[in-house]
Amino acid sequence: MKTDRPVALIDTKRCRHNIQSMAGKLEQLGITYRPHFKTHQSAEIGNWYRDAGVTKITVSSPGMASYFIQNGWNDVTIGFPATRSQCKDIEELSGMAGISLFINDPVTAQYFAENSSNALNVFIEIDAGFNRSGVAADKPELIEKIYKILDQSPVLNFYGFYVHDGRTYSVKGKKEVGKVINPVITVLNELKADYPNAKVCMGDTPSCSLLSSFPGIDELSPGNNVFYDLMQLNIGSCSLDDVAMAVACPVAQVKADEGEAIIYGGAVHFSKDRIEWNGRVTFGAVMDLNEDSFGNLIKGSYLKGVSQEHGQLKADPGWISGLKPGDTICILPVHSCLSANLFDHYQTVDGNRIEKRILS
Amino acid sequence: MKTDRPVALIDTKRCRHNIQSMAGKLEQLGITYRPHFKTHQSAEIGNWYRDAGVTKITVSSPGMASYFIQNGWNDVTIGFPATRSQCKDIEELSGMAGISLFINDPVTAQYFAENSSNALNVFIEIDAGFNRSGVAADKPELIEKIYKILDQSPVLNFYGFYVHDGRTYSVKGKKEVGKVINPVITVLNELKADYPNAKVCMGDTPSCSLLSSFPGIDELSPGNNVFYDLMQLNIGSCSLDDVAMAVACPVAQVKADEGEAIIYGGAVHFSKDRIEWNGRVTFGAVMDLNEDSFGNLIKGSYLKGVSQEHGQLKADPGWISGLKPGDTICILPVHSCLSANLFDHYQTVDGNRIEKRILS
Repeated sequence: MKTDRPVALIDTKRCRHNIQSMAGKLEQLGITYRPHFKTHQSAEIGNWYRDAGVTKITVSSPGMASYFIQNGWNDVTIGFPATRSQCKDIEELSGMAGISLFINDPVTAQYFAENSSNALNVFIEIDAGFNRSGVAADKPELIEKIYKILDQSPVLNFYGFYVHDGRTYSVKGKKEVGKVINPVITVLNELKADYPNAKVCMGDTPSCSLLSSFPGIDELSPGNNVFYDLMQLNIGSCSLDDVAMAVACPVAQVKADEGEAIIYGGAVHFSKDRIEWNGRVTFGAVMDLNEDSFGNLIKGSYLKGVSQEHGQLKADPGWISGLKPGDTICILPVHSCLSANLFDHYQTVDGNRIEKRILS
Repeated sequence: MKTDRPVALIDTKRCRHNIQSMAGKLEQLGITYRPHFKTHQSAEIGNWYRDAGVTKITVSSPGMASYFIQNGWNDVTIGFPATRSQCKDIEELSGMAGISLFINDPVTAQYFAENSSNALNVFIEIDAGFNRSGVAADKPELIEKIYKILDQSPVLNFYGFYVHDGRTYSVKGKKEVGKVINPVITVLNELKADYPNAKVCMGDTPSCSLLSSFPGIDELSPGNNVFYDLMQLNIGSCSLDDVAMAVACPVAQVKADEGEAIIYGGAVHFSKDRIEWNGRVTFGAVMDLNEDSFGNLIKGSYLKGVSQEHGQLKADPGWISGLKPGDTICILPVHSCLSANLFDHYQTVDGNRIEKRILS
């Protein structure tokens, strides 16, 4: 293909396969699949999940919930701690669809109890060691305090506990991911013992992809597995054949002597997530673009830096010298969620346009 | 103020002051001010430059050029190496306004010479040591080869040489910035000696802000100085009173025991540029928000991490414990260009909405 600007490409077959594969696995395990839609943010891709039997979804803001409710979804978890200032918007959403919230403190719980009139499901988010949001698992009195407010409210329905443990993004392979996440599963089961009506849920892509058993877990909500990316490939969550999103970029300049090319593709297309990959800090890698699918990674290729619109691409000098300015190459981004968020639509590898929501 | 989601705030008075101050300085020096509009991407903010006498602008893509041409700008430099695939779009633009391009190789020069019918000004971008895009200054035969194609073309008009030397973003203070940029100014003057009709231009914000003399330079095109940011503050390009853009964010959770808060504000609002600041890797800092302007930085505050929507804020435990979930705080981002790119509008500190272009 030829393009005059960076274009977010997706491989429809692989996307559908990734969705179907997770749906099939969780169905067999008897676990509800409640995928996170913040990765793709597209009504049309949402429909591919419907085709795989999905009826419940996760999003990251009331605005994103509204977009998907307008597209027919009626069981939506807003997977980010709710704030008092969102109460009015959420009231409107809960008049149209079933809404689940995260509430992590008594003040917010009390506020929603006093100011909501439609029923709301409420998760208490648990921090099992990742140290981001959530009530620390070792603060049972705080959990109980929030629970009591929910229990006494006629509109707030305590739904269960949710953990996102991002520590699995810093390790590699099934064994290490299991070592991080199995204690988290234990924490959730202990909470379930104390609160027998609670559903317990989690959703990091590495464990959802790699593990084959989630004892006691009721719902899983991975999102990134719809596309995967270089980070997940590096963790081992997927194989190269599962990678379903990349960015087509024009070559702006070829510096053959330096084994380097400058591409039109930078922080406003990939964001600036970086990983250490093959011993080097990298912002992306070059992937072959075949007629109807993505191909292999170009050996030794890596984006060594990105500025606002520029990408600095290193690769084997022989390969670089085969490029001409104006050619199109295909970059596998480090983090597909952040890269996809920077485009207003997708193009499928076979040339169709897929609309999406703009910006989070 | 109260907000239910991250909002890009700007301080109109400071923006106008930053524009006026650069315009006044360059007028005194007899240098053309051709500001980069990729930072703000807003027609309305563009008008504030008009009020300061600006008539020529820089953008980073044909799409951005089109937006500003539709808003009445008729002398526009597209400050990124042009590619053959953009030739048709550029032909359309050059039928509506005066367009300058960067062309850094003979193949692209030849292609535009053969496929353009409207006159185009052409810069040869020079790499004076930053090692990003541009023809290396020590390759005079390549420069001459491109020049000859331009010289022989009836539609391509050789305009001059352009350098963006981003090495000034890695040093601090006027003296160090001068040490990086003075040799670059020498390179440009040597090129001018060889090509006497050439205009020589540059535009990095640290040198444009800090230096008071640019011998021989014809045009300067800084962009970031409209807003500045934590990176520029850290370099010393501006004082805190010049900072004109920040992001209002809801507090999602307060972890008083840990001296930490979780904010609704992450990589989809700030991007992921990071700097070392006060000895720590940081993604932003908290700034007071007064009734009609920004205030001081909260001492010791810094964003230690950002994920897609979460920001992990550290600060003095006493200050943190004064926060409540649902409060609004104001984050000074590390890089305002990337952060602004992630919003579909601005809100002024006194509550007015300012439209902008969406995504680069």
